[in-house]
Amino acid sequence: MHTFVQELKKSMFAEGLDDNELEKLCSIAESKTFFKSEKIFDEKDKTSSLYFLVEGRIRIERKAFPKRHLFIPQIQIVKHGQIFGEMAFLDNVPRSAIARAAGSVRVIIFDSEKLHQLLTMDANLGYKVMGNIARIISRRLRRMNDHWLSAVGSDFVIPEFEYSN
Amino acid sequence: MHTFVQELKKSMFAEGLDDNELEKLCSIAESKTFFKSEKIFDEKDKTSSLYFLVEGRIRIERKAFPKRHLFIPQIQIVKHGQIFGEMAFLDNVPRSAIARAAGSVRVIIFDSEKLHQLLTMDANLGYKVMGNIARIISRRLRRMNDHWLSAVGSDFVIPEFEYSN
Repeated sequence: MHTFVQELKKSMFAEGLDDNELEKLCSIAESKTFFKSEKIFDEKDKTSSLYFLVEGRIRIERKAFPKRHLFIPQIQIVKHGQIFGEMAFLDNVPRSAIARAAGSVRVIIFDSEKLHQLLTMDANLGYKVMGNIARIISRRLRRMNDHWLSAVGSDFVIPEFEYSN
Repeated sequence: MHTFVQELKKSMFAEGLDDNELEKLCSIAESKTFFKSEKIFDEKDKTSSLYFLVEGRIRIERKAFPKRHLFIPQIQIVKHGQIFGEMAFLDNVPRSAIARAAGSVRVIIFDSEKLHQLLTMDANLGYKVMGNIARIISRRLRRMNDHWLSAVGSDFVIPEFEYSN
């Protein structure tokens, strides 16, 4: 059995996958270690690999807006057992944020092209994995909405915000 | 050809689907009209249908927090050609917000059970549709992050926000 199988097995990303499907997924994956403060990817990078965090913590950051911010806006913390980098993976657009190791971390990397190819060829696996990714992002969006609404006060009117799609 | 096919055809939700797949999708769908201010669903409703907006505009609202808000927080505007209600569809959890007709609207409704069944049985279709839903939500989350960061000033420190998954 591939050593990654056990690491992925209990995650939401691999929910519903049988051992055979997990093996397929792991056969295209690689593992890498990053040290504290190292960037896994940078804003505007044209890479689109999908990452699974095995150990440690990742900070998702944005570059400061010129003249508006002195601090580095931190959007999220990724904890072990979670995926990150899925926006560029799904849309093949440049990275929208920086992923930085908050300490020593180990990640499993799914090359974008190899993963898309695998999911297209094995549509059952593709359906399960895409469903899991959709559920993960949906929960993140739900939490972001909660976060937004609990952070803003009644003196802070929410501007009309349109779904672009 | 099913009348819904043309309405879905150019949407991001149906991207990459061939006519045969569109027909399958439409065969389980229904259409419904709502009038201004009518609720399509309410917060905490235990329904999980997926909606596609054909005509009009939908306001996604949250009930006011007791003692914190006097106004009704409006999270998003849904425009024609877009899906909504996907969170409950994906996760089978109660609705997290109210969907209200901003004027007269027409929607295509996909019953949750029927759609899940179709996507499981036809995994190629399932893979494409789940991929499209994941991409749609991913873009919404990306916009919500942008929105958040452009709304907060440098005097407003973003609290550590953890991905639950």
